[in-house]
Amino acid sequence: MCRWLAYSGKPVLIDDLLYGPDHSLIAQSLHSTMGAEATNGDGFGIGWYGVGDEPGVFHSIEPAWNDRNLHELSRHITSPLVFAHIRASTGSPVQQTNCHPFRYRNWLWMHNGVIRDFDVVKRELVLEIKPELYPLIEGSTDSEVLFHLALTYGLEHDPPAAVERAVGLVEDVGHEHGIEYPIMMTVATTDGVRTWVFRYSSEGDSRTLFYSTDVETLQLMYPDSPYMHQVSSELGREGRLIVSEPLGERLLGAWNAVPERTWGVVQPGPDDSHAFTPTPPARRAAAVV
Amino acid sequence: MCRWLAYSGKPVLIDDLLYGPDHSLIAQSLHSTMGAEATNGDGFGIGWYGVGDEPGVFHSIEPAWNDRNLHELSRHITSPLVFAHIRASTGSPVQQTNCHPFRYRNWLWMHNGVIRDFDVVKRELVLEIKPELYPLIEGSTDSEVLFHLALTYGLEHDPPAAVERAVGLVEDVGHEHGIEYPIMMTVATTDGVRTWVFRYSSEGDSRTLFYSTDVETLQLMYPDSPYMHQVSSELGREGRLIVSEPLGERLLGAWNAVPERTWGVVQPGPDDSHAFTPTPPARRAAAVV
Amino acid sequence: MCRWLAYSGKPVLIDDLLYGPDHSLIAQSLHSTMGAEATNGDGFGIGWYGVGDEPGVFHSIEPAWNDRNLHELSRHITSPLVFAHIRASTGSPVQQTNCHPFRYRNWLWMHNGVIRDFDVVKRELVLEIKPELYPLIEGSTDSEVLFHLALTYGLEHDPPAAVERAVGLVEDVGHEHGIEYPIMMTVATTDGVRTWVFRYSSEGDSRTLFYSTDVETLQLMYPDSPYMHQVSSELGREGRLIVSEPLGERLLGAWNAVPERTWGVVQPGPDDSHAFTPTPPARRAAAVV
Amino acid sequence: MCRWLAYSGKPVLIDDLLYGPDHSLIAQSLHSTMGAEATNGDGFGIGWYGVGDEPGVFHSIEPAWNDRNLHELSRHITSPLVFAHIRASTGSPVQQTNCHPFRYRNWLWMHNGVIRDFDVVKRELVLEIKPELYPLIEGSTDSEVLFHLALTYGLEHDPPAAVERAVGLVEDVGHEHGIEYPIMMTVATTDGVRTWVFRYSSEGDSRTLFYSTDVETLQLMYPDSPYMHQVSSELGREGRLIVSEPLGERLLGAWNAVPERTWGVVQPGPDDSHAFTPTPPARRAAAVV
Repeated sequence: MCRWLAYSGKPVLIDDLLYGPDHSLIAQSLHSTMGAEATNGDGFGIGWYGVGDEPGVFHSIEPAWNDRNLHELSRHITSPLVFAHIRASTGSPVQQTNCHPFRYRNWLWMHNGVIRDFDVVKRELVLEIKPELYPLIEGSTDSEVLFHLALTYGLEHDPPAAVERAVGLVEDVGHEHGIEYPIMMTVATTDGVRTWVFRYSSEGDSRTLFYSTDVETLQLMYPDSPYMHQVSSELGREGRLIVSEPLGERLLGAWNAVPERTWGVVQPGPDDSHAFTPTPPARRAAAVV
Repeated sequence: MCRWLAYSGKPVLIDDLLYGPDHSLIAQSLHSTMGAEATNGDGFGIGWYGVGDEPGVFHSIEPAWNDRNLHELSRHITSPLVFAHIRASTGSPVQQTNCHPFRYRNWLWMHNGVIRDFDVVKRELVLEIKPELYPLIEGSTDSEVLFHLALTYGLEHDPPAAVERAVGLVEDVGHEHGIEYPIMMTVATTDGVRTWVFRYSSEGDSRTLFYSTDVETLQLMYPDSPYMHQVSSELGREGRLIVSEPLGERLLGAWNAVPERTWGVVQPGPDDSHAFTPTPPARRAAAVV
Repeated sequence: MCRWLAYSGKPVLIDDLLYGPDHSLIAQSLHSTMGAEATNGDGFGIGWYGVGDEPGVFHSIEPAWNDRNLHELSRHITSPLVFAHIRASTGSPVQQTNCHPFRYRNWLWMHNGVIRDFDVVKRELVLEIKPELYPLIEGSTDSEVLFHLALTYGLEHDPPAAVERAVGLVEDVGHEHGIEYPIMMTVATTDGVRTWVFRYSSEGDSRTLFYSTDVETLQLMYPDSPYMHQVSSELGREGRLIVSEPLGERLLGAWNAVPERTWGVVQPGPDDSHAFTPTPPARRAAAVV
Repeated sequence: MCRWLAYSGKPVLIDDLLYGPDHSLIAQSLHSTMGAEATNGDGFGIGWYGVGDEPGVFHSIEPAWNDRNLHELSRHITSPLVFAHIRASTGSPVQQTNCHPFRYRNWLWMHNGVIRDFDVVKRELVLEIKPELYPLIEGSTDSEVLFHLALTYGLEHDPPAAVERAVGLVEDVGHEHGIEYPIMMTVATTDGVRTWVFRYSSEGDSRTLFYSTDVETLQLMYPDSPYMHQVSSELGREGRLIVSEPLGERLLGAWNAVPERTWGVVQPGPDDSHAFTPTPPARRAAAVV
């Protein structure tokens, strides 16, 4: 399993996001308290939008807590939209091509969770990926396959529907193989403007996921908090953080749990959330296996 | 492309194989003279038989010429059968799972060459791999796919026939996609007792491949050479080296070019070589694509 | 801080030492229970005697728990004397030259602990190292400086006296700079035949250190234990393990704490232990600073 | 030895500097034509000014030609002042702390060349470094020691004088040890505004060093060159490149060799160059050795 963070709002120094908070993502890489594993030391990655059309990505196989390049870069890059991910491998090798976030054109994708018995279902899942997308798979994770399934089902046009189809397929194939709970996941994906997040598991008991309360609510809740003023000035009015676990316990009410079986979108203007319902697609290659 | 070396004979210190000769494999990593590229700095690997049932493998993404662990290990491990490979990537990422030799049970496999337009044919080739072997593919190279195709076609029972089928498939699929010369290769594979080598390319113009003259012939050719005595005592009577390029120029006649379209086997007792004829297998999944 | 293990006895597969036990050193790299840090993921190293005059060493900057090469090597190398060390950096960079064990000729050295305020005292300590040893320092740890001080004071001839002088110097220089407790350490060093271990700290509250009870005692204590029979057959009569923390809790009495301010030697024949008394040497370069 | 590049001018995408030109620095990492070695694959580094007070640095031990993170970062960071360095080790280990450019506060430093017999003179040179700077040395290269000597002698206040003293010391100590030609170097250093470059060797036969002709001259020389227009629009009027070897051969006259025994400064307004004369400082610690 893993831990991740998605930020969008006014441009911030990546260092403030990753190293600043009490219980920062980098601190979580050594001592996660809500993750399936305490240590998330099997590589990491960040993705950010700024210079250039595509987002930049930086992937490393070293533990985040002692990677000097990560610390350097995060102190010298600002961005209005940042994904960060620390990995605890569920079996696949620790290599850069297995580090999140994954990128396709202007899209980023990251995942915490697991496709269960991936060795058993991998071939059938990969067969459903569009042939023109297939050669773009570089690593060996379940997460990257899930991303390419979502792309196959139209992620670029309707992200929630595409992810519902991808997850529906994973459950369908899994059940055929007698896997009771084929998938558990929190996912974040973005086109550089809007960020969609998903929390779902076949067993209805997903990994945690939280989003930050909007700044105005926080200011009303904590009129006298100096920390609140810092958060407010850092994040701005539209700033949002979505995280696997809260980045500190100082502000009760600053973090809201995303409910089970939910997807949401963070965007300029009001955010939005809905029920997430896996929808198995018709299968093209099923006859072959 | 790449450079490789296969040794079998009496146990030797790996260091003597890799670092000892004039134009050693490690020297070739910086200054290959016959390879497609002068520099083979995109990782390396060694495989050896000794302690344990399976061969050991050591893979690294650092250039061989400055990898301290390789130098350490090679000075502290002896083995009667060693594969060593230095890589010049033809595009796939530099990661341990893309380093040769690849292993399956007691088998090792390494490859110099390329499946051309691999992105175009990869999906169809992978579809032909036995479903139970498919999850064992960890990297993203053409070489590892070729290995798993050979395993699918019976490498463990009849290596030459299995490789002829695998190569036949690659040419078949390639030609369907308008690829004129789908494959170029030198390959070595071993079960720990015998070593099979292959030199073949669709265009009839393969990378070089050489084997060492047997020691008795060398002793007759060079009765007064102190170097010959060293080779003789190091390699023993049954010792054989097969290499991408000769490890020095001191002994004219010590290296014999393996002819085009040939496979050979190095084994206890007389060696053997034959014409290599690709044989396309019936395709299971062809209808699907 | 760190965790380490020293084995001597009949030749064993390194894998049995590192991965076999319940609470093996590799398990401790993720979940140490007695260390200053739970995670020891800042690189690791092993040293072993076997082929060649000098011991072999293998150093890596990846966490031990997911290093494939470590797992490979440990399954294919046997040795009668093995040092293994997992690192939790106290500040110095994660690089191979900072990984233990350190080597000088036929000697190995590893350390768990810290020279406090090392930045303050480093220059003065380094000045005391013999000029001909000075260029051999490759990394930037306190542990390597301590090793070279011990070599300067005659480690090769009288290890306990040399380490007492080195520690005496560290305390002397530290106290001059107002450092209350200049050093904390457990150290193991070997010449390939005998292994000396040290447990000491200026404050009299050192990191833990344990040695395994001799096999005959264990057999008397646990006449019906199948695990005991396994240990017995694995370690042999003269086998000894010295560890930062016990490798499991199954056999009460199998592990003995080494007392504070003690050095001991494990050797063919009876072992031996004594009080450890730091002895500041005369300082050569003191006037310069 | 190594290859390096220093750019100052209007902000450019680092990618354009590193990967754009015909004979780019990244191409030189595989196929340098003027360097002491054809391959510069022993790690690399970049430094740049932009976000934050200090420059950012990115160091890697992988060869530059296949480092994906370098390619990513260079496509997503712009800067008006960039240092880039590719390394061919002259013996010291390949580790991030040995990668250039080195940083101290707002200063960067990089070096191509060698302090000869560094093992012999290292201790005496290090003794001359200010005690408060000494703990900042993290690696084991001659280049980093030279930097800290220059800092000791006032680099921040008068760079040419400081480097003349540092080089004077190196020659002085070297000659005492019977080293005929103690140093060879090209060096670049910057405070983020001005960049000083040095070309010197004891034997009067230094590695090559070139600076780009100013844009106006180029435009007069090549009024019809589309490439010239590109260079012009990319570099702007004040843009300057200083390089170990020219980045292509298309524009005769675009590159000017820096003469032997010269230092120069690139700055807003007219550039400047002078004779470089090593000046041994009085030695503080000489009596000790």
